[in-house]
Amino acid sequence: MKQIFLIGAGRSSNYLINFLLNEAEAHDLQLLVGDMDRGLAESKIKDHPHGKAIQFDIQDEEQAGKLIEGTDLVISMLPAKFHSVVGKICLEKGKNLLTASYNTPEMMELDNGARDKGILFLMEMGLDPGIDHMSAMKVLDELNEQGYVIHAFETFTGGLLAPHDNDNPWDYKFTWNPRNVVTAGQGIVKFVQEGRFKYIPYYRLFRRTERIFIPGHGYFEGYANRDSLKYREIYKLEDVKTLYRGTLRRPGFSRAWNNLIQLGATDDEYQMEGVGDMTHREFTNSFLPFNPNDSVELKLAHYLNLDMEGEEMYMLQWLGLFDDTLVGIDEGSPAVVLEHILKKKWTMTPEDRDMIIMFHKFIYHEKGNPEETKELNSHMVVLGEDDVNTSMAKTVGLPLAVAAKLILQEKIDAKGVCLPITREIYKPVLEELEKVGISFHERKIVEED
Amino acid sequence: MKQIFLIGAGRSSNYLINFLLNEAEAHDLQLLVGDMDRGLAESKIKDHPHGKAIQFDIQDEEQAGKLIEGTDLVISMLPAKFHSVVGKICLEKGKNLLTASYNTPEMMELDNGARDKGILFLMEMGLDPGIDHMSAMKVLDELNEQGYVIHAFETFTGGLLAPHDNDNPWDYKFTWNPRNVVTAGQGIVKFVQEGRFKYIPYYRLFRRTERIFIPGHGYFEGYANRDSLKYREIYKLEDVKTLYRGTLRRPGFSRAWNNLIQLGATDDEYQMEGVGDMTHREFTNSFLPFNPNDSVELKLAHYLNLDMEGEEMYMLQWLGLFDDTLVGIDEGSPAVVLEHILKKKWTMTPEDRDMIIMFHKFIYHEKGNPEETKELNSHMVVLGEDDVNTSMAKTVGLPLAVAAKLILQEKIDAKGVCLPITREIYKPVLEELEKVGISFHERKIVEED
Repeated sequence: MKQIFLIGAGRSSNYLINFLLNEAEAHDLQLLVGDMDRGLAESKIKDHPHGKAIQFDIQDEEQAGKLIEGTDLVISMLPAKFHSVVGKICLEKGKNLLTASYNTPEMMELDNGARDKGILFLMEMGLDPGIDHMSAMKVLDELNEQGYVIHAFETFTGGLLAPHDNDNPWDYKFTWNPRNVVTAGQGIVKFVQEGRFKYIPYYRLFRRTERIFIPGHGYFEGYANRDSLKYREIYKLEDVKTLYRGTLRRPGFSRAWNNLIQLGATDDEYQMEGVGDMTHREFTNSFLPFNPNDSVELKLAHYLNLDMEGEEMYMLQWLGLFDDTLVGIDEGSPAVVLEHILKKKWTMTPEDRDMIIMFHKFIYHEKGNPEETKELNSHMVVLGEDDVNTSMAKTVGLPLAVAAKLILQEKIDAKGVCLPITREIYKPVLEELEKVGISFHERKIVEED
Repeated sequence: MKQIFLIGAGRSSNYLINFLLNEAEAHDLQLLVGDMDRGLAESKIKDHPHGKAIQFDIQDEEQAGKLIEGTDLVISMLPAKFHSVVGKICLEKGKNLLTASYNTPEMMELDNGARDKGILFLMEMGLDPGIDHMSAMKVLDELNEQGYVIHAFETFTGGLLAPHDNDNPWDYKFTWNPRNVVTAGQGIVKFVQEGRFKYIPYYRLFRRTERIFIPGHGYFEGYANRDSLKYREIYKLEDVKTLYRGTLRRPGFSRAWNNLIQLGATDDEYQMEGVGDMTHREFTNSFLPFNPNDSVELKLAHYLNLDMEGEEMYMLQWLGLFDDTLVGIDEGSPAVVLEHILKKKWTMTPEDRDMIIMFHKFIYHEKGNPEETKELNSHMVVLGEDDVNTSMAKTVGLPLAVAAKLILQEKIDAKGVCLPITREIYKPVLEELEKVGISFHERKIVEED
């Protein structure tokens, strides 16, 4: 009997745990789930005969060493900074490791050691990063085999609300880590477009969106992710003319969100004064020029050049930014205070269902014939069941679960620190994901004369 | 005979060295000037019988220890990060230290030790910080003694070009560290206005200027410096309703400069691709959306909402931002590339003279009568002689020189790490500065009915 040791039993582990427990009998698996909160781990195992829950703290390295020694594969759902700690122990004990987090230089330091020991540290095996890599590489490899040259690759992912009747003018709620949503896009954005390097500063990013149409799902808007340039190497697209990775929102979101950025309300770099007795309205006012004779609403509308009766003002008002309500926390950066205000409106209710949407656009041509380009689009839409069994948890957890199964079945030969960009990994994983409703629709775009 | 060891013989040391050499005979002083470039130090000493030049590298701690041991006072003109290294040696050898740089937590760690040894580490003894502290504290102490309560204190300093006929629409050149000018205002700006805390993000800062009129010198505009809040404690103004520190420019500068910020051209956090064969025009284009059919000029004007024939476009054009000229460096961040482009237009010629301007505004009232406020303004204007003997070098160097003389004459009792905010320091220094043309004009503002 093989044992998987899953570290972290939070919301993103739901589907992962259920998948592995369902497969446990047939594949002779044992699943050990460790979490700081043992009760949480137990609630996910639900007395399953192949499951076991324990209290676990990665900072107790002795316990970690013992547990990892007795296991065949570790899946780390810990915050990204802990992966290299887990990785070092896995290397010492000669055990495979799976995570859904971005690869890091610290992990790459373990690459040679892992190769030498013949073990696999498979990183970026969730949704984004994860499914994006696999679904992109599948098409890129196919086009390559057909002799095409890739001219452009654009890819977008969004975690949104499923379509529904609502009175939410943003058509948005937090379906994942709220802090990451509040600070999204900070830092510099780099990409290449038609052979030219392009850079967008944070305070311009949400005004440079692309409109995306996905058949059957309507319009979305995409803003660019931080560094698209490094994917030229990862996707073996060193000569590609355009490479752009972005995030999807509903149309209108970005323009309205940009107002919060322009205020300075998303800054996470300094602590505000007097948060303890600050109201929403005072928070907003702290970013506006002093003037005792004008309302906060008028000052903001004038400062950001908004129509007092327009959609953007309504969206800000709807969020409660002008309310005389206490924020309700004692201290924090603007981003922390804003997150707290937004949570009052943007927290999912049990009736809410989330939606993951991913869209790839490939432009390619035959060798020696760059004028005649062809276009292929590919998209995936996954709906959540409720506010616990979300499409986010599903699309992050199931790639990990399927990969775990493949590794234990010794169907993956790769060793060292890897991403899921090779066929031996993406092919079986995508095939299995398709069976559970995580599938891509491809269509060739034919221009009409 | 007492010895002063001056570390650093760059441009900002000119007046400092001349002042001390002129005083050397009368006060029985010896001046040792150490610089990485011994020739530079020699050129400043010019065989003066009381001066000596040596090659000196602060990273050679053995040499540093020997030299500091044999001296009575060290003046460090090194980059700020080296002051704590010098400070540690001064503490070990029991020697006084003077710098024109902002105080740091690292220096404060030496405070107790310096007190115990009875030595003085006087920081922030230049222009800004330096003369700003001294001239502000003089007025604040006087108002306090007259029984007034300070309601508001605003202070602005600018390093500009002296008034002259010119074809420079910015009316600006680099008169000090160009990198600091290019990255000025990055980070968060905090101040307090009428009792309310206010925060301005970088990308809004240069649009929130205050207009300042200085009699005999005309109009200026001021943008806020980073953290004004910490000066409540330094100036003992814990209850002040408004505290604002800012930088002065000629009217129109900030609005035009803001365009470079909006592009992202002042970012110093990442390296650009392909700088080696980049033209000015390509640099500008790298921040604009791709469109093969529009000119870079039109794209920029549209992106930043500028009038194609307007003043701001003319100012950008005048800087050469649309020129097909190679930048001429191999690598760099946007800020480094921009600095290089700007230097082609903004480098002082021998005919150019710089100007330092400092302006304080105090609003105060009698105790128990906050409705009836009075206003006092105070300003200083210093003109440079040429592009070497600048007002910047004068106003940074002479406060240090005067303080050095006072310390060697044992006229300052303060011990430990100090700023020039106490009367025993600012009174004699300001009196001596007045003799060399660095003086403040105070005027009470009377509102007409």
